[in-house]
Amino acid sequence: MLDTPKVAVIMGSDSDFDVVKKCLIALERFGIEYDVQVISAHRNPQKIFEYATTAEERGIEVIIGAAGKAAHLPGVIAGITPLPVIGIPIQTSFQGGLDSLLSIVQMPAGVPVATVAVNGAENAGILAAQMLSIKYPEIREKMKAYKILLNDEVVAKNEKVQEIL
Amino acid sequence: MLDTPKVAVIMGSDSDFDVVKKCLIALERFGIEYDVQVISAHRNPQKIFEYATTAEERGIEVIIGAAGKAAHLPGVIAGITPLPVIGIPIQTSFQGGLDSLLSIVQMPAGVPVATVAVNGAENAGILAAQMLSIKYPEIREKMKAYKILLNDEVVAKNEKVQEIL
Amino acid sequence: MLDTPKVAVIMGSDSDFDVVKKCLIALERFGIEYDVQVISAHRNPQKIFEYATTAEERGIEVIIGAAGKAAHLPGVIAGITPLPVIGIPIQTSFQGGLDSLLSIVQMPAGVPVATVAVNGAENAGILAAQMLSIKYPEIREKMKAYKILLNDEVVAKNEKVQEIL
Amino acid sequence: MLDTPKVAVIMGSDSDFDVVKKCLIALERFGIEYDVQVISAHRNPQKIFEYATTAEERGIEVIIGAAGKAAHLPGVIAGITPLPVIGIPIQTSFQGGLDSLLSIVQMPAGVPVATVAVNGAENAGILAAQMLSIKYPEIREKMKAYKILLNDEVVAKNEKVQEIL
Amino acid sequence: MLDTPKVAVIMGSDSDFDVVKKCLIALERFGIEYDVQVISAHRNPQKIFEYATTAEERGIEVIIGAAGKAAHLPGVIAGITPLPVIGIPIQTSFQGGLDSLLSIVQMPAGVPVATVAVNGAENAGILAAQMLSIKYPEIREKMKAYKILLNDEVVAKNEKVQEIL
Amino acid sequence: MLDTPKVAVIMGSDSDFDVVKKCLIALERFGIEYDVQVISAHRNPQKIFEYATTAEERGIEVIIGAAGKAAHLPGVIAGITPLPVIGIPIQTSFQGGLDSLLSIVQMPAGVPVATVAVNGAENAGILAAQMLSIKYPEIREKMKAYKILLNDEVVAKNEKVQEIL
Amino acid sequence: MLDTPKVAVIMGSDSDFDVVKKCLIALERFGIEYDVQVISAHRNPQKIFEYATTAEERGIEVIIGAAGKAAHLPGVIAGITPLPVIGIPIQTSFQGGLDSLLSIVQMPAGVPVATVAVNGAENAGILAAQMLSIKYPEIREKMKAYKILLNDEVVAKNEKVQEIL
Amino acid sequence: MLDTPKVAVIMGSDSDFDVVKKCLIALERFGIEYDVQVISAHRNPQKIFEYATTAEERGIEVIIGAAGKAAHLPGVIAGITPLPVIGIPIQTSFQGGLDSLLSIVQMPAGVPVATVAVNGAENAGILAAQMLSIKYPEIREKMKAYKILLNDEVVAKNEKVQEIL
Repeated sequence: MLDTPKVAVIMGSDSDFDVVKKCLIALERFGIEYDVQVISAHRNPQKIFEYATTAEERGIEVIIGAAGKAAHLPGVIAGITPLPVIGIPIQTSFQGGLDSLLSIVQMPAGVPVATVAVNGAENAGILAAQMLSIKYPEIREKMKAYKILLNDEVVAKNEKVQEIL
Repeated sequence: MLDTPKVAVIMGSDSDFDVVKKCLIALERFGIEYDVQVISAHRNPQKIFEYATTAEERGIEVIIGAAGKAAHLPGVIAGITPLPVIGIPIQTSFQGGLDSLLSIVQMPAGVPVATVAVNGAENAGILAAQMLSIKYPEIREKMKAYKILLNDEVVAKNEKVQEIL
Repeated sequence: MLDTPKVAVIMGSDSDFDVVKKCLIALERFGIEYDVQVISAHRNPQKIFEYATTAEERGIEVIIGAAGKAAHLPGVIAGITPLPVIGIPIQTSFQGGLDSLLSIVQMPAGVPVATVAVNGAENAGILAAQMLSIKYPEIREKMKAYKILLNDEVVAKNEKVQEIL
Repeated sequence: MLDTPKVAVIMGSDSDFDVVKKCLIALERFGIEYDVQVISAHRNPQKIFEYATTAEERGIEVIIGAAGKAAHLPGVIAGITPLPVIGIPIQTSFQGGLDSLLSIVQMPAGVPVATVAVNGAENAGILAAQMLSIKYPEIREKMKAYKILLNDEVVAKNEKVQEIL
Repeated sequence: MLDTPKVAVIMGSDSDFDVVKKCLIALERFGIEYDVQVISAHRNPQKIFEYATTAEERGIEVIIGAAGKAAHLPGVIAGITPLPVIGIPIQTSFQGGLDSLLSIVQMPAGVPVATVAVNGAENAGILAAQMLSIKYPEIREKMKAYKILLNDEVVAKNEKVQEIL
Repeated sequence: MLDTPKVAVIMGSDSDFDVVKKCLIALERFGIEYDVQVISAHRNPQKIFEYATTAEERGIEVIIGAAGKAAHLPGVIAGITPLPVIGIPIQTSFQGGLDSLLSIVQMPAGVPVATVAVNGAENAGILAAQMLSIKYPEIREKMKAYKILLNDEVVAKNEKVQEIL
Repeated sequence: MLDTPKVAVIMGSDSDFDVVKKCLIALERFGIEYDVQVISAHRNPQKIFEYATTAEERGIEVIIGAAGKAAHLPGVIAGITPLPVIGIPIQTSFQGGLDSLLSIVQMPAGVPVATVAVNGAENAGILAAQMLSIKYPEIREKMKAYKILLNDEVVAKNEKVQEIL
Repeated sequence: MLDTPKVAVIMGSDSDFDVVKKCLIALERFGIEYDVQVISAHRNPQKIFEYATTAEERGIEVIIGAAGKAAHLPGVIAGITPLPVIGIPIQTSFQGGLDSLLSIVQMPAGVPVATVAVNGAENAGILAAQMLSIKYPEIREKMKAYKILLNDEVVAKNEKVQEIL
């Protein structure tokens, strides 16, 4: 059922790949197929327009956009598609990425972008899974198991700290 | 099918109601039933824990949390529920709400909050509708119609400006 | 020679008109015809794409874009057209418009936007005139006269202050 | 009298341990027993709720919470316990930890968190000692001796600088 | 037992009184006697030195300092006294009081100031009560009652919102 | 036709040269001759006044100024010459160059500086080329070819990423 | 001896006069003659150059410059004259005047501007008096009296607050 | 005439010495004797009070204070002495030293601190020399020579850049 890509992961530059990889790993954890693309909102305007226009009919259900600086990519996509769009602000040398964050999160009324933390690629993948879990019960089950795992990991770390002290 | 609440809208203080109203209007535009609650993460810790724990079994599919200053509400909810959580940073007198924005968007790995703009309550409602549209085709159709409406409204405004000049 | 519009002035929302008016007055001071449009990068994606693609062939030589918050308009235009693009960051309630400023000025390599001050609409008009003055000597002459006027105005103000004291 | 833990030191992640260590050393300087825990407000919501609820009856008199980014830990604890809570904002790559600082210090009315500087773990320990010194005269005496020591250390450093010059 | 002042509330300027009043009301709620003073760290350096030096012997157990802009008052006091010092950053027209906040919270190692939110005078009073509750069980009981009251107030507000909808 | 310098590139310090080099390479890409100068607005006030006053008569058509910290260079030039002036804010250790950016972009009405991103030297060169392309059709043609190249480069990078996955 | 102007007070715009007035009142308090000028660094570049070049020979001993936004005035003056230059950053709607502050205070090595607080015109006048008091013993005496006055004013205010309570 | 110290250079911590050294070198350039001290406003409150109180009678004419984070040192000194006080904000890991800068520059009315750039120790020395040059003509002469040197250095650097190109 999830064997065709449900999530599109688009980055504005291949230099964002190291950050975006954590998003892909998160999607894989929930067994979600994805389509990865390097498309720049500013350098490939025609291509991003076409990709976003046709995403829904190709079976994409959530689009994730990662970009830095004047990070227009997720907002441009959100202006075109009716699908939910998640934005990952890439860290920059300007105030730790405040430029990326504000360019993505401060969208005007009518066109939301679901923004995660600066460099929060892993959370973008988890958020996409949470969105899909509205429709796909098997992802919801995996999400519940994941939350137990999160809890257990910290408990284990706590035990290690107790041993040190 | 949408006659029981699918979206929970929780605000940390009743003083946030003026902003949150726009979220409710947006949900109504897409025919989405909602449950509104005033619950503070800091003043009603037991209640927020119980509400978030039981939301899924009561049929809630998306939770929206609005809060200001050290705005922990959406993040606290996201730590408890497997559902997708949307955060609305309420504007404050501190740098236009930078405190609210950072307290909501900068979530650590594992627990995302889908953050909209400061005071972006309308967009929170639209984003919830986009998430639900993954499962409910009738909301997707309304979303497409809404995007055409958005376009037409600006076109109409442009015509008025042309007349003035 | 300047009787067809040489400058396009595009604003993302008609609420920006009060600020943008100062840009139009500045262009008129230099006898420069302009074309004003309300087009949103997010609500009219198809229209902004078409407008920017065809601007050069319609005789436009400089494009000015004004937008607020996650202000993508000037950057989106700059991604499409080979013409110089000037960006006006509209003031917001978030840190005095830092969101608009960073969304416009922090463009990635390859696609510049000539950014003026927050709400610097008058300067956007003057900058467009300076760009056109490279080609049109009559605008250069007006620019020189304008700089003398600027000087004289402050000198006159100084005289008034001397009288008060 | 101080042989059971009077201070709980809770960190949101074991990666905060290097910073938190300075807090433990400070507590030891004043002969104060402590209980260290790694508990995440977002990953162990049930556990943090239980820990904070029962802290007072276990003899804890001050709780210190250290967390970074959207740092909800100290605020969540302060919402549950009647004990004084100290917050340590952990430095991040985002504006030097402004996100951590604002998430901790900007608490709404009714639920204070006594916030120290970014990475101010040593001061958190000293502040806890000052709070306890209200009740325990032997800690007050040590605090007075410590302030003399602080003075003497700088005087000694000054002498070294005088020798260099 | 609490009939002599246990808390000193010092403000740098009488213009801070409107904010500081909420601190006094909070202290009164917990039955805590206080001594209010207007003393400027910069204009009354001798007086602040003497006040802070002798506070402990006059029975003061917690000192609260409120100041704005380059807000040195709480830090200067903390450098002199072994008592715990709480700092209230007063809101300014500069970035909502970021100057006051950083001047108070970013204290160097060895000399902590327990900082509350910008204009968080009410919380300063509550925090002082929490510190005193370490020693005085009757304040602890009032604190527990206060937390129940906080909870009940929000529950009541929630009921009102339910009625409106 | 372009064999005498059309663009002046002035930097406030030779330490800015590493950043400014990208501007020169960009100008060369469009076949534009340039004149490079190290002139400080603060250390060579007489020289910058003379250079800016005589630039137009020497055939300069665009002036680019690069400076850091309290970066007055581009604004001072813009106050003197009727030519369009481009400002490059050099990155500093203060908030990633916010000082440089604000000192350049926030020019008062009457005297614009066309500001590019922090360290956006390459874009400054491209923007100068776009301004000159208003007059010189051969630069316009190169600009169109450059935009195709930009698109193709990202397409090629996308293909590489597809191969990796 | 002080009957010819010793201090020049230059503002970039007559709109700054309301703020600058407090500087003049402060100078008068210390019996210091001043010369007030409205000269813009950007609109009167020739005039500011001449004024700063000849200030010393006209008997000026300290220059105060007030400006807002990209506030180059004090730095430009400091680049020309060997006299000490004081800068007053005028408050703006951008982050409470952060643009003015950074444009004035972040001067590069070699050319200092003695910067006071945003809108700190009164302090600029006092600082000028302190500088002059190095040479003129009568101003030093007035400064000592002024510091006693400052102390007494706060003491009086404290007494009023004591009466209210 | 200048053989006893005219300038006191006080740093809050010996870790500031690397930055402060540039101030001493600048003072030496102008032949100005100085007294260097490590005195912390928070750790040596008594000592700083005494030093500042007696500075004038010991022949000190200008006091320079360097401090970081909640940098109270220069302001505390300025509250005590009638002498002009220069503040050097030491760079920190928090927003490049914004905490130090605001703690020093944002002084309340009545008590100015002449603030230089973050880490601007060299400029603090030059500013002290400019202040002293009001009284001592030989320092004024050296200042004029220094400004010529500054100019010549950049001219020489420009020539080197011309050779490279």
